Amino acid sequence: MRMYDLIQKKKQGAALSGDEISWMVKEYTNGAIPDYQMSAMMMAICFQGMDETETLQLTLSMRDSGDVLDLSSISGIKVDKHSTGGVGDKTSLVLAPMVASLGIPVAKMSGRGLGHTGGTIDKLECFPGFTTSLSESQFIENVNRIKLAIMGQTGNLAPADKKLYALRDVTATVNQMSLIASSIMSKKLAAGSDAIVLDVKTGNGAFMQKESDAFALAEEMVRIGNGAGKRTVAVITDMDQPLGFAVGNSLEVKEAILSLNGQGPADFMEVVYALGAQMAILGGKADTQEEARALLLDAVKSGAALKKLAEFVEAQGGDGNYVYHPELLPAAPHILEVKSSEEGFITRILAEEIGLASLILGGGRSTKDSEIDLSVGILLKKKRGDHVQYGDTLATIYASSMDKALEAYGKIVNAYHIGETPEKCPMIKGVIKEA
Amino acid sequence: MRMYDLIQKKKQGAALSGDEISWMVKEYTNGAIPDYQMSAMMMAICFQGMDETETLQLTLSMRDSGDVLDLSSISGIKVDKHSTGGVGDKTSLVLAPMVASLGIPVAKMSGRGLGHTGGTIDKLECFPGFTTSLSESQFIENVNRIKLAIMGQTGNLAPADKKLYALRDVTATVNQMSLIASSIMSKKLAAGSDAIVLDVKTGNGAFMQKESDAFALAEEMVRIGNGAGKRTVAVITDMDQPLGFAVGNSLEVKEAILSLNGQGPADFMEVVYALGAQMAILGGKADTQEEARALLLDAVKSGAALKKLAEFVEAQGGDGNYVYHPELLPAAPHILEVKSSEEGFITRILAEEIGLASLILGGGRSTKDSEIDLSVGILLKKKRGDHVQYGDTLATIYASSMDKALEAYGKIVNAYHIGETPEKCPMIKGVIKEA
Repeated sequence: MRMYDLIQKKKQGAALSGDEISWMVKEYTNGAIPDYQMSAMMMAICFQGMDETETLQLTLSMRDSGDVLDLSSISGIKVDKHSTGGVGDKTSLVLAPMVASLGIPVAKMSGRGLGHTGGTIDKLECFPGFTTSLSESQFIENVNRIKLAIMGQTGNLAPADKKLYALRDVTATVNQMSLIASSIMSKKLAAGSDAIVLDVKTGNGAFMQKESDAFALAEEMVRIGNGAGKRTVAVITDMDQPLGFAVGNSLEVKEAILSLNGQGPADFMEVVYALGAQMAILGGKADTQEEARALLLDAVKSGAALKKLAEFVEAQGGDGNYVYHPELLPAAPHILEVKSSEEGFITRILAEEIGLASLILGGGRSTKDSEIDLSVGILLKKKRGDHVQYGDTLATIYASSMDKALEAYGKIVNAYHIGETPEKCPMIKGVIKEA
Repeated sequence: MRMYDLIQKKKQGAALSGDEISWMVKEYTNGAIPDYQMSAMMMAICFQGMDETETLQLTLSMRDSGDVLDLSSISGIKVDKHSTGGVGDKTSLVLAPMVASLGIPVAKMSGRGLGHTGGTIDKLECFPGFTTSLSESQFIENVNRIKLAIMGQTGNLAPADKKLYALRDVTATVNQMSLIASSIMSKKLAAGSDAIVLDVKTGNGAFMQKESDAFALAEEMVRIGNGAGKRTVAVITDMDQPLGFAVGNSLEVKEAILSLNGQGPADFMEVVYALGAQMAILGGKADTQEEARALLLDAVKSGAALKKLAEFVEAQGGDGNYVYHPELLPAAPHILEVKSSEEGFITRILAEEIGLASLILGGGRSTKDSEIDLSVGILLKKKRGDHVQYGDTLATIYASSMDKALEAYGKIVNAYHIGETPEKCPMIKGVIKEA
């Protein structure tokens, strides 16, 4: 087989065979196919696309390029959740203990990565002493005992995807549906869960800004997941404004605790319950949406979910007391309020701008080696649809210095769009179970 | 400027600016832009194309990436000829002395390259003692004195094209009209002539198999040449069967000598006169086609053209006596006749197959370091439109061993297609002067 012929074939619009794709991924991963041939192939795929069979084969080949985790020693149906990413997305912090409290095992590997705020691991490190450096046996034991554990990424998951993504990132070939779907799914499939719930976000703060693109990506990923033998459901959710009120690590942890106390922001809880219900159904704890939602509501009302968070934090060396006393969590010393200079209804809050404000404050990583400041962030006071008067507080900035607060201020002002009529925008755009 | 942004721009179908293209070519040539980004760009160009302005700018940037020859110390209008390549193409061997005998300076730099037979330099080396290792001053003196000299390629002409072509060759991005045109023209423009005649071949043995593609390429190259300030004419000629009867180095030299003696094959001479007339006009020796053709016919009839060949061979150390005694040229020891097993009219002779037969015999280079056997080749006895009886000789193979002759035999048999009615096919498909 020659890579030249495969490039030519794809360039002419033909479908690559399963053998061709698995050969290509293998030889690229081991370095036998050079980057310059693979980037030409990626560009050809951007123009000619890949069909369902090719996309599945690419995903499976990338999954099999490294370790595939074996979680069989954990009892129960392990349901993984993945979000395509957004601003103020603290969903995992709430969903993990909520679902675990229903008896569904949550065994998560997490990385840190780049972003406007830290990842789930960074946020959990707001609890003094908390660690994700668990041994594999400790990890499995924790899940079997309390149904919830999170450890730092182990093993070499989907190295082909890692190499390919780095190449696509510098050759303007990221933005192709099948390539995006296979990249995400190859890692999810290598992570060893039994079922997958995908949160595909759409709107100005999402990777998929257009709703139709989000649906297409969701369908593609669900098709791959089911094709690979894992029950997979995607929920398409709104990211046209930040999710909830809090953006920033400790602020989001506080909001997560409030949510587990039954006081979560309405938009955020809508997303949490929609995803949680799918997880409960796939986890075998409920047959219908209504049943699943009732279980989740009860887990909050009874305090079981909050208790599960405390139990989990303590099981990984953290101070569980903080769960009941979130005022102890790190807080930034400088506070600046962003006031409205107009009157009217909030029509949009550009999530991307709020995210950048968080990054400016030091709440996220711009490079792999950046230090994160867990205490800083933004607390939105008004959200889409709210009415504001001149001088009303739109948001509060929590900063390490007044200089940084002022720098973030401009971004936040720009993020808020105010108009004459309130606009409605449902949080849940749709659910895809079978493509 | 970032290469990423240029790839993205081209991928989305926008035109690159002159500054962007010249920056890209410069940074790619000096190694600052990696191959994997350039191959993605080339693939994007295959899908989105380049407009006339972009194509001209790419050509000029590649021309300027290395030395641009200065032939100003040669008096007269220097007309260069370039062929897109075909089987049995000994046009230069006849045109160069013919045109020089009219007083038009022919100052050619030539490489050896790969192919079914050797290049013009290899063929000229059939004359014992002939060399292209001339000093620059000797080269210029020869052209000024006898109007004709050929030297091995000097200087570093269009290194950007060399690097880019090598990349395109392994990434399935050769076959794009603007890229092909700019590659050819960047080298021609760097070679320093005042005017350019292009022989764009079409048919089964040509790079451009479809006539419409050949016309499109011709138009693109003429546009570039004129845009770069050089008068440029393209003649689109047939390559649906080998040109003339001879394929192989010394066989082609013999046929060239026959042609200069007025005994050239009809199809071949039609191409020679069509190209020669354009050269005579661009060289300022004739105003009309009729006038130009009359001059060329006279150069053959009077023996001036043949004499010019002898003079040229001697000026570069060769034995001019061979020009008048072509029977002295190297001849292969083994001869095998290919007989017809059918009766009818010859409808096609697949030039590509005849070319491969020549390569099998050792007449061409398959790698840069291959040795060429100047004595071997194929002499076609029947051409398209000829009627053959069962047992008639279609072609004669000249080989270094009977084994090789037999190996070539099959290719030649496959090349000949015999049908019930003769087909007509004009040798000259068109002339493009302004696109």
